[in-house]
Amino acid sequence: MGEWLRSPIRGVLLDITGVLYESSADHGTVIPGSVKAVNRLRESGMPFRLVTNETTTPTTVLLDKLRRFGYQLEERELFSPIPAVVKLLQQEQLVPHLLVHPKVEGELRVGEKGSPASCVVLGDAEDNFSYANLNSAFRALMVMPCPRLITLGYGRYYKHNQQLQLDVGVYAKALEFACGVESEVVGKPSPAFFNQALADMGVQAEEAVMVGDDISSDVEGAQKCGMRGVLVRTGKFTSSLLPHPTITPDCVVDNLAEAVDQILAAKGKN
Amino acid sequence: MGEWLRSPIRGVLLDITGVLYESSADHGTVIPGSVKAVNRLRESGMPFRLVTNETTTPTTVLLDKLRRFGYQLEERELFSPIPAVVKLLQQEQLVPHLLVHPKVEGELRVGEKGSPASCVVLGDAEDNFSYANLNSAFRALMVMPCPRLITLGYGRYYKHNQQLQLDVGVYAKALEFACGVESEVVGKPSPAFFNQALADMGVQAEEAVMVGDDISSDVEGAQKCGMRGVLVRTGKFTSSLLPHPTITPDCVVDNLAEAVDQILAAKGKN
Repeated sequence: MGEWLRSPIRGVLLDITGVLYESSADHGTVIPGSVKAVNRLRESGMPFRLVTNETTTPTTVLLDKLRRFGYQLEERELFSPIPAVVKLLQQEQLVPHLLVHPKVEGELRVGEKGSPASCVVLGDAEDNFSYANLNSAFRALMVMPCPRLITLGYGRYYKHNQQLQLDVGVYAKALEFACGVESEVVGKPSPAFFNQALADMGVQAEEAVMVGDDISSDVEGAQKCGMRGVLVRTGKFTSSLLPHPTITPDCVVDNLAEAVDQILAAKGKN
Repeated sequence: MGEWLRSPIRGVLLDITGVLYESSADHGTVIPGSVKAVNRLRESGMPFRLVTNETTTPTTVLLDKLRRFGYQLEERELFSPIPAVVKLLQQEQLVPHLLVHPKVEGELRVGEKGSPASCVVLGDAEDNFSYANLNSAFRALMVMPCPRLITLGYGRYYKHNQQLQLDVGVYAKALEFACGVESEVVGKPSPAFFNQALADMGVQAEEAVMVGDDISSDVEGAQKCGMRGVLVRTGKFTSSLLPHPTITPDCVVDNLAEAVDQILAAKGKN
């Protein structure tokens, strides 16, 4: 049993893209062993939740895709920044200026029509990250009395179609620099976002592990929150990532199957 | 005589956009009093040079535009990042991956055709700052054994067509974050760039003043270099800039004419 499993694990958080499937222009491909690994978690009674920063597609579409891969999942098991930010916008009565993917614009359009924007909401907009659109978001921030930049995740890049591709965090950083503001993150690695999923399982951070392919958003984010962070060698992983100058994963595994093997083997032994 | 003029001024550096003319979609408009101010500098025998981060247009086109406004200028008086970076690329035998404005691509295409890129050169690319192009630059950096990101200026924004518009520094910051690299600046506020213009006048930094509308690139850049930095209330200036949390201009004036009035009035008095 690995050192990182000496204290018991009572709940597991799983990243989706790069852990359950590899992203591509069409539907992506399932990662071998991951469907069985999720089934084994469920059969063993180990609570788990999916925590994703995927904002290029509505949650229901993402769930459908995962089910087609063979994953048996319920909607309530999936935590994504989109419902979280809708709740925030409603609670604080914010009117968002959106710079997001066209597929999720409808879900995020809340607040009174025609009211001036009181925040900018940034998602993984992909080709919508044009110079014109980034300028519009910048100008919206510059005229707000109290500019608020809300970003759905803070990732640097991810793997799509077998190549690396810029993520939303890069554009959040750009707008932060342009306007002299700090962004508020909804999604990983925000502790509030992780804590929502932990609370839903009724598990303390110290008893939980996050498994992901992003050394910052998943591993460092989890560790800063008090969880253990396991890095998989699937998805965007490249060997040049390790050793990382500031982040040491609790464990590095080939894939989700190996992580689940270790977690379940330790179960009951401590 | 203002406090900032107690020690003598023997050379003047002038920003162009926002100081000599206001930028717009067509040809821009000259700033009232600026042509006369430049003429007065020349008549008084006060050495001056123009230092610009303008990289959306070739130097010769910019000079033509200034001459049409009535400025009498020689090409050798204008310092821009484009010739400076061409020299750097040639000296270090670098092959650039370009993310620049289409109008200046020709000038910057140096190095062996077909060789793999050994650096990324970032200019004010405007609409060329698409998601696809930023991804290409990002991927080019990610496969370089020693990634070098060279940016032509580091500005946050400027005023164009009476509205604020994102500048190259914002995209430099984005790529720095994505790749974990630091960019090398060619242009303002790089001390090497200012020093080139000072050396050309044969003037020490302590004896020189920079007049510009950018509180970071112009004023702070000049001050870090040992010069005095004067901020004009034209161009991108907005009153919300002042007081600035970390930068105190040596003087704030309505326009270039006022700065030249003060500089020439002090001339000979100290």
